[in-house]
Amino acid sequence: MNPSGLEALIEALRCLPGVGPKSAQRMAYYLLQHDRKGAQRLSDAVLHALTSIRHCRRCNTFAEEEICERCASPRRDSSLLCVVETPVDMNMMEQTHAYQGLYYVLMGRISPLDGVGSRELGLEQLLSRILDGVVREVILATNYTNEGEATAHYITAMLKPKGISVTRIARGVPVGGELEYVDSGTLAQALRERRACAG
Amino acid sequence: MNPSGLEALIEALRCLPGVGPKSAQRMAYYLLQHDRKGAQRLSDAVLHALTSIRHCRRCNTFAEEEICERCASPRRDSSLLCVVETPVDMNMMEQTHAYQGLYYVLMGRISPLDGVGSRELGLEQLLSRILDGVVREVILATNYTNEGEATAHYITAMLKPKGISVTRIARGVPVGGELEYVDSGTLAQALRERRACAG
Repeated sequence: MNPSGLEALIEALRCLPGVGPKSAQRMAYYLLQHDRKGAQRLSDAVLHALTSIRHCRRCNTFAEEEICERCASPRRDSSLLCVVETPVDMNMMEQTHAYQGLYYVLMGRISPLDGVGSRELGLEQLLSRILDGVVREVILATNYTNEGEATAHYITAMLKPKGISVTRIARGVPVGGELEYVDSGTLAQALRERRACAG
Repeated sequence: MNPSGLEALIEALRCLPGVGPKSAQRMAYYLLQHDRKGAQRLSDAVLHALTSIRHCRRCNTFAEEEICERCASPRRDSSLLCVVETPVDMNMMEQTHAYQGLYYVLMGRISPLDGVGSRELGLEQLLSRILDGVVREVILATNYTNEGEATAHYITAMLKPKGISVTRIARGVPVGGELEYVDSGTLAQALRERRACAG
Protein backbone atom coordinates (compact mmCIF):
# COMPACT_ATOMS: atom_id res chain seq x y z
CA MET A 1 0.00 0.00 0.00
CA ASN A 2 2.83 2.39 0.91
CA PRO A 3 5.61 3.18 -1.58
CA SER A 4 8.51 0.78 -1.18
CA GLY A 5 10.95 3.35 0.23
CA LEU A 6 8.43 4.18 2.92
CA GLU A 7 7.78 0.51 3.68
CA ALA A 8 11.55 -0.01 4.02
CA LEU A 9 11.75 2.90 6.47
CA ILE A 10 8.85 1.54 8.55
CA GLU A 11 10.50 -1.88 8.60
CA ALA A 12 13.87 -0.38 9.57
CA LEU A 13 12.35 1.60 12.45
CA ARG A 14 11.06 -1.65 13.91
CA CYS A 15 14.61 -2.58 14.88
CA LEU A 16 14.25 -0.05 17.71
CA PRO A 17 13.28 -1.65 21.01
CA GLY A 18 9.62 -1.14 21.94
CA VAL A 19 8.62 -0.07 18.44
CA GLY A 20 5.90 -2.20 16.82
CA PRO A 21 4.33 -1.87 13.37
CA LYS A 22 1.89 0.90 14.36
CA SER A 23 4.48 3.12 16.06
CA ALA A 24 6.97 2.53 13.26
CA GLN A 25 4.40 3.71 10.74
CA ARG A 26 3.56 6.75 12.84
CA MET A 27 7.25 7.58 13.19
CA ALA A 28 7.92 7.23 9.46
CA TYR A 29 4.96 9.43 8.53
CA TYR A 30 5.99 11.97 11.14
CA LEU A 31 9.59 12.15 9.92
CA LEU A 32 8.62 12.54 6.28
CA GLN A 33 5.79 14.99 6.91
CA HIS A 34 6.97 17.12 9.81
CA ASP A 35 10.67 16.68 10.52
CA ARG A 36 12.82 15.96 7.50
CA LYS A 37 15.69 17.84 9.11
CA GLY A 38 15.41 15.65 12.20
CA ALA A 39 15.33 12.58 9.97
CA GLN A 40 18.50 13.68 8.23
CA ARG A 41 20.12 14.31 11.62
CA LEU A 42 19.00 10.87 12.80
CA SER A 43 20.49 9.14 9.79
CA ASP A 44 23.78 11.01 10.24
CA ALA A 45 23.92 10.41 14.00
CA VAL A 46 23.37 6.67 13.64
CA LEU A 47 26.10 6.45 11.02
CA HIS A 48 28.50 8.56 13.07
CA ALA A 49 27.85 6.57 16.25
CA LEU A 50 28.36 3.30 14.40
CA THR A 51 31.80 4.37 13.27
CA SER A 52 32.92 6.28 16.37
CA ILE A 53 31.53 4.37 19.36
CA ARG A 54 33.28 1.29 20.66
CA HIS A 55 33.81 -0.30 24.06
CA CYS A 56 36.39 1.00 26.53
CA ARG A 57 39.07 -1.67 26.78
CA ARG A 58 39.11 -1.40 30.58
CA CYS A 59 35.53 -0.83 31.73
CA ASN A 60 33.63 -2.04 28.65
CA THR A 61 31.29 0.96 28.54
CA PHE A 62 30.62 2.89 25.34
CA ALA A 63 33.51 5.18 24.50
CA GLU A 64 35.08 7.03 21.62
CA GLU A 65 38.61 6.47 22.93
CA GLU A 66 40.32 3.12 23.46
CA ILE A 67 40.38 3.82 27.21
CA CYS A 68 37.51 6.01 28.41
CA GLU A 69 38.05 9.25 30.30
CA ARG A 70 36.96 7.79 33.62
CA CYS A 71 39.27 4.79 33.42
CA ALA A 72 42.15 7.08 32.43
CA SER A 73 41.56 9.53 35.28
CA PRO A 74 44.32 9.54 37.93
CA ARG A 75 41.86 10.84 40.54
CA ARG A 76 39.94 7.60 40.66
CA ASP A 77 40.63 4.91 43.26
CA SER A 78 41.71 2.05 41.06
CA SER A 79 41.67 -0.47 43.90
CA LEU A 80 37.84 -0.41 43.83
CA LEU A 81 35.91 -1.91 40.94
CA CYS A 82 32.14 -1.60 40.80
CA VAL A 83 30.38 -4.06 38.47
CA VAL A 84 27.13 -2.80 36.92
CA GLU A 85 24.83 -4.14 34.22
CA THR A 86 24.50 -1.10 31.97
CA PRO A 87 25.94 2.38 31.31
CA VAL A 88 22.71 3.79 32.78
CA ASP A 89 23.41 2.00 36.05
CA MET A 90 26.93 3.43 36.02
CA ASN A 91 25.49 6.92 35.56
CA MET A 92 23.12 6.30 38.47
CA MET A 93 26.06 5.32 40.69
CA GLU A 94 27.99 8.41 39.58
CA GLN A 95 25.06 10.66 40.44
CA THR A 96 25.30 9.57 44.08
CA HIS A 97 28.75 11.25 44.29
CA ALA A 98 29.44 8.55 46.87
CA TYR A 99 31.86 6.47 44.83
CA GLN A 100 35.34 7.34 43.62
CA GLY A 101 36.45 3.95 42.32
CA LEU A 102 36.33 2.51 38.81
CA TYR A 103 33.65 0.52 37.01
CA TYR A 104 33.11 -2.49 34.87
CA VAL A 105 29.98 -2.46 32.70
CA LEU A 106 28.70 -5.94 31.84
CA MET A 107 26.42 -4.62 29.07
CA GLY A 108 23.88 -7.21 30.13
CA ARG A 109 23.19 -9.88 32.71
CA ILE A 110 23.19 -13.63 32.87
CA SER A 111 19.85 -14.71 31.49
CA PRO A 112 19.59 -18.35 30.40
CA LEU A 113 16.13 -17.77 28.92
CA ASP A 114 17.62 -15.24 26.50
CA GLY A 115 20.62 -17.47 25.82
CA VAL A 116 23.01 -15.25 27.77
CA GLY A 117 25.44 -17.24 29.88
CA SER A 118 28.82 -16.33 31.37
CA ARG A 119 30.53 -16.69 28.00
CA GLU A 120 28.07 -14.48 26.09
CA LEU A 121 28.43 -11.89 28.85
CA GLY A 122 32.22 -11.93 28.42
CA LEU A 123 33.02 -12.68 32.05
CA GLU A 124 36.58 -13.77 31.15
CA GLN A 125 37.23 -10.16 30.17
CA LEU A 126 35.91 -9.06 33.56
CA LEU A 127 38.12 -11.62 35.28
CA SER A 128 41.28 -10.47 33.51
CA ARG A 129 40.33 -6.86 34.30
CA ILE A 130 39.98 -7.72 37.99
CA LEU A 131 43.26 -9.64 38.11
CA ASP A 132 45.32 -6.61 37.11
CA GLY A 133 47.08 -6.65 40.50
CA VAL A 134 45.58 -3.32 41.54
CA VAL A 135 41.93 -4.15 42.24
CA ARG A 136 41.40 -5.16 45.87
CA GLU A 137 37.64 -5.01 46.18
CA VAL A 138 34.91 -5.80 43.69
CA ILE A 139 31.55 -4.19 44.48
CA LEU A 140 28.66 -5.96 42.78
CA ALA A 141 25.98 -3.44 41.86
CA THR A 142 23.90 -5.58 39.53
CA ASN A 143 20.13 -5.21 39.89
CA TYR A 144 18.21 -6.99 42.61
CA THR A 145 16.22 -8.84 39.98
CA ASN A 146 16.48 -12.60 39.53
CA GLU A 147 18.91 -12.19 36.66
CA GLY A 148 20.97 -9.54 38.43
CA GLU A 149 21.17 -11.76 41.51
CA ALA A 150 22.21 -14.76 39.41
CA THR A 151 24.91 -12.66 37.76
CA ALA A 152 26.19 -11.50 41.16
CA HIS A 153 26.28 -15.07 42.45
CA TYR A 154 28.15 -16.24 39.39
CA ILE A 155 30.78 -13.51 39.66
CA THR A 156 31.16 -14.15 43.40
CA ALA A 157 31.81 -17.84 42.76
CA MET A 158 34.25 -16.98 39.99
CA LEU A 159 36.25 -14.64 42.23
CA LYS A 160 36.24 -16.70 45.43
CA PRO A 161 39.34 -18.78 44.54
CA LYS A 162 41.24 -15.64 43.50
CA GLY A 163 41.41 -14.05 46.94
CA ILE A 164 39.63 -10.87 45.87
CA SER A 165 37.24 -9.22 48.30
CA VAL A 166 33.72 -9.21 46.83
CA THR A 167 30.88 -7.12 48.23
CA ARG A 168 27.28 -6.46 47.22
CA ILE A 169 25.42 -3.15 47.53
CA ALA A 170 22.91 -3.21 50.39
CA ARG A 171 19.28 -4.03 49.96
CA GLY A 172 16.50 -2.70 52.15
CA VAL A 173 13.92 0.01 52.69
CA PRO A 174 14.58 2.96 50.32
CA VAL A 175 15.69 6.21 51.90
CA GLY A 176 12.54 8.23 52.51
CA GLY A 177 10.51 5.03 52.09
CA GLU A 178 7.53 4.31 54.29
CA LEU A 179 7.07 0.76 55.52
CA GLU A 180 3.43 0.92 54.52
CA TYR A 181 4.38 1.19 50.86
CA VAL A 182 7.39 -1.13 50.73
CA ASP A 183 6.77 -4.59 49.32
CA SER A 184 6.98 -7.40 51.85
CA GLY A 185 9.94 -9.09 50.16
CA THR A 186 12.05 -5.96 50.57
CA LEU A 187 10.86 -5.55 54.15
CA ALA A 188 11.69 -9.17 54.99
CA GLN A 189 15.21 -8.70 53.62
CA ALA A 190 15.63 -5.44 55.49
CA LEU A 191 14.70 -7.30 58.67
CA ARG A 192 17.07 -10.21 58.02
CA GLU A 193 19.90 -7.87 57.14
CA ARG A 194 19.36 -5.50 60.09
CA ARG A 195 22.41 -3.73 61.46
CA ALA A 196 23.45 -2.81 64.98
CA CYS A 197 22.63 0.82 65.77
CA ALA A 198 25.62 3.03 66.40
CA GLY A 199 26.07 4.77 69.82
CA MET B 1 28.65 11.45 30.80
CA ASN B 2 28.23 9.58 27.51
CA PRO B 3 30.69 10.02 24.65
CA SER B 4 29.61 12.86 22.36
CA GLY B 5 28.73 10.63 19.39
CA LEU B 6 26.42 8.63 21.65
CA GLU B 7 24.84 11.78 23.09
CA ALA B 8 24.24 13.04 19.55
CA LEU B 9 22.54 9.76 18.67
CA ILE B 10 20.34 9.89 21.78
CA GLU B 11 19.42 13.49 20.96
CA ALA B 12 18.68 12.60 17.34
CA LEU B 13 16.41 9.70 18.32
CA ARG B 14 14.29 12.15 20.32
CA CYS B 15 12.98 13.62 17.08
CA LEU B 16 10.84 10.48 16.80
CA PRO B 17 7.30 11.01 18.10
CA GLY B 18 6.68 9.48 21.53
CA VAL B 19 10.37 9.03 22.29
CA GLY B 20 11.57 10.79 25.45
CA PRO B 21 15.08 10.96 26.93
CA LYS B 22 14.87 7.54 28.66
CA SER B 23 13.61 5.65 25.61
CA ALA B 24 16.08 7.43 23.35
CA GLN B 25 18.92 6.33 25.60
CA ARG B 26 17.60 2.77 25.69
CA MET B 27 17.29 2.74 21.90
CA ALA B 28 20.80 4.09 21.37
CA TYR B 29 22.35 1.55 23.73
CA TYR B 30 20.37 -1.22 22.13
CA LEU B 31 21.40 -0.29 18.60
CA LEU B 32 25.09 -0.03 19.50
CA GLN B 33 25.17 -3.12 21.69
CA HIS B 34 22.80 -5.54 20.00
CA ASP B 35 21.83 -4.45 16.50
CA ARG B 36 24.51 -2.58 14.58
CA LYS B 37 23.22 -4.08 11.34
CA GLY B 38 19.74 -2.81 12.10
CA ALA B 39 21.20 0.60 12.89
CA GLN B 40 22.98 0.70 9.57
CA ARG B 41 19.77 -0.33 7.82
CA LEU B 42 17.88 2.38 9.69
CA SER B 43 20.35 5.07 8.67
CA ASP B 44 20.18 3.97 5.05
CA ALA B 45 16.39 3.67 5.02
CA VAL B 46 15.90 7.16 6.44
CA LEU B 47 18.26 8.60 3.85
CA HIS B 48 16.65 6.68 1.00
CA ALA B 49 13.13 7.68 2.07
CA LEU B 50 14.16 11.33 2.36
CA THR B 51 15.34 11.36 -1.21
CA SER B 52 12.71 9.10 -2.80
CA ILE B 53 9.44 9.92 -1.02
CA ARG B 54 7.41 12.96 -2.01
CA HIS B 55 3.73 13.81 -2.16
CA CYS B 56 1.49 12.66 -4.99
CA ARG B 57 0.55 15.76 -6.96
CA ARG B 58 -3.08 14.69 -7.11
CA CYS B 59 -3.95 13.06 -3.75
CA ASN B 60 -1.11 14.43 -1.60
CA THR B 61 -0.25 11.04 -0.06
CA PHE B 62 3.32 9.77 0.17
CA ALA B 63 4.51 8.46 -3.18
CA GLU B 64 7.64 7.73 -5.12
CA GLU B 65 6.08 8.80 -8.41
CA GLU B 66 4.76 12.26 -9.28
CA ILE B 67 1.26 10.79 -9.56
CA CYS B 68 0.68 7.76 -7.32
CA GLU B 69 -0.51 4.43 -8.65
CA ARG B 70 -4.00 4.82 -7.25
CA CYS B 71 -4.55 8.25 -8.78
CA ALA B 72 -3.21 6.98 -12.10
CA SER B 73 -5.46 3.92 -12.15
CA PRO B 74 -8.16 3.97 -14.85
CA ARG B 75 -10.32 1.60 -12.80
CA ARG B 76 -11.07 4.17 -10.13
CA ASP B 77 -14.20 6.32 -10.22
CA SER B 78 -12.70 9.79 -10.55
CA SER B 79 -16.02 11.52 -9.91
CA LEU B 80 -15.79 10.57 -6.20
CA LEU B 81 -13.18 12.15 -3.95
CA CYS B 82 -12.80 10.99 -0.35
CA VAL B 83 -10.97 13.42 1.94
CA VAL B 84 -9.04 11.80 4.83
CA GLU B 85 -6.59 13.12 7.40
CA THR B 86 -3.72 10.65 7.01
CA PRO B 87 -2.41 7.83 4.78
CA VAL B 88 -3.39 5.42 7.57
CA ASP B 89 -7.00 6.57 7.30
CA MET B 90 -6.83 6.04 3.54
CA ASN B 91 -5.56 2.51 4.09
CA MET B 92 -8.42 1.89 6.52
CA MET B 93 -10.91 3.02 3.89
CA GLU B 94 -9.28 0.81 1.27
CA GLN B 95 -9.50 -2.19 3.55
CA THR B 96 -13.29 -1.89 3.56
CA HIS B 97 -13.29 -2.70 -0.18
CA ALA B 98 -16.43 -0.53 -0.23
CA TYR B 99 -15.00 2.44 -2.06
CA GLN B 100 -13.81 2.70 -5.64
CA GLY B 101 -13.29 6.45 -5.92
CA LEU B 102 -10.16 8.55 -5.42
CA TYR B 103 -8.73 10.18 -2.32
CA TYR B 104 -7.24 13.37 -1.04
CA VAL B 105 -5.00 13.08 2.01
CA LEU B 106 -4.84 16.25 4.09
CA MET B 107 -1.75 15.08 5.99
CA GLY B 108 -3.21 16.69 9.08
CA ARG B 109 -6.26 18.50 10.36
CA ILE B 110 -7.24 22.02 11.29
CA SER B 111 -5.96 22.54 14.81
CA PRO B 112 -5.68 26.16 15.94
CA LEU B 113 -3.93 25.13 19.16
CA ASP B 114 -1.11 23.62 17.11
CA GLY B 115 -1.07 26.60 14.75
CA VAL B 116 -2.59 24.61 11.88
CA GLY B 117 -5.19 26.64 10.00
CA SER B 118 -6.62 26.22 6.50
CA ARG B 119 -3.50 27.71 4.96
CA GLU B 120 -1.05 25.46 6.79
CA LEU B 121 -3.19 22.49 5.81
CA GLY B 122 -2.95 23.54 2.14
CA LEU B 123 -6.70 23.61 1.53
CA GLU B 124 -6.22 25.69 -1.65
CA GLN B 125 -4.51 22.64 -3.14
CA LEU B 126 -7.53 20.53 -2.15
CA LEU B 127 -9.86 23.12 -3.68
CA SER B 128 -8.03 23.18 -7.01
CA ARG B 129 -7.97 19.35 -6.97
CA ILE B 130 -11.75 19.27 -6.46
CA LEU B 131 -12.44 21.84 -9.16
CA ASP B 132 -10.89 19.70 -11.90
CA GLY B 133 -14.29 19.41 -13.59
CA VAL B 134 -14.51 15.66 -12.99
CA VAL B 135 -15.22 15.41 -9.25
CA ARG B 136 -18.94 15.44 -8.53
CA GLU B 137 -19.04 14.36 -4.91
CA VAL B 138 -16.64 15.00 -2.06
CA ILE B 139 -16.92 12.52 0.81
CA LEU B 140 -15.50 13.89 4.06
CA ALA B 141 -13.93 11.05 6.05
CA THR B 142 -12.02 13.10 8.61
CA ASN B 143 -12.12 11.79 12.17
CA TYR B 144 -15.06 12.41 14.46
CA THR B 145 -12.82 14.29 16.85
CA ASN B 146 -13.19 18.02 17.50
CA GLU B 147 -10.42 18.82 15.05
CA GLY B 148 -11.67 16.39 12.41
CA GLU B 149 -15.15 17.89 12.73
CA ALA B 150 -13.80 21.43 12.46
CA THR B 151 -11.87 20.42 9.35
CA ALA B 152 -14.99 18.88 7.82
CA HIS B 153 -17.03 22.00 8.57
CA TYR B 154 -14.38 24.22 7.06
CA ILE B 155 -14.19 22.21 3.86
CA THR B 156 -17.98 22.09 3.62
CA ALA B 157 -18.19 25.88 3.88
CA MET B 158 -15.40 26.23 1.34
CA LEU B 159 -17.20 24.00 -1.21
CA LYS B 160 -20.75 25.26 -0.71
CA PRO B 161 -20.50 28.17 -3.20
CA LYS B 162 -18.87 25.88 -5.78
CA GLY B 163 -21.91 23.68 -6.34
CA ILE B 164 -20.08 20.45 -5.43
CA SER B 165 -22.00 17.79 -3.53
CA VAL B 166 -20.38 17.26 -0.09
CA THR B 167 -21.18 14.30 2.15
CA ARG B 168 -19.88 13.07 5.51
CA ILE B 169 -19.39 9.42 6.50
CA ALA B 170 -22.07 8.28 8.96
CA ARG B 171 -21.64 8.30 12.70
CA GLY B 172 -23.35 5.91 15.09
CA VAL B 173 -23.15 2.63 16.97
CA PRO B 174 -20.24 0.54 15.59
CA VAL B 175 -21.15 -2.62 13.71
CA GLY B 176 -21.15 -5.41 16.28
CA GLY B 177 -21.30 -2.78 19.03
CA GLU B 178 -23.44 -3.28 22.12
CA LEU B 179 -25.38 -0.30 23.45
CA GLU B 180 -24.14 -1.10 26.94
CA TYR B 181 -20.56 -0.32 25.93
CA VAL B 182 -21.10 2.61 23.58
CA ASP B 183 -20.43 6.06 25.05
CA SER B 184 -23.51 8.22 25.55
CA GLY B 185 -22.37 10.89 23.07
CA THR B 186 -22.25 8.32 20.28
CA LEU B 187 -25.59 6.87 21.35
CA ALA B 188 -27.21 10.32 21.43
CA GLN B 189 -25.96 11.01 17.90
CA ALA B 190 -27.12 7.61 16.71
CA LEU B 191 -30.57 8.46 18.06
CA ARG B 192 -30.67 11.92 16.47
CA GLU B 193 -29.47 10.57 13.14
CA ARG B 194 -31.81 7.55 13.09
CA ARG B 195 -32.95 6.28 9.72
CA ALA B 196 -36.24 4.93 8.49
CA CYS B 197 -36.19 1.13 8.38
CA ALA B 198 -36.49 -0.42 4.96
CA GLY B 199 -39.41 -2.68 4.05
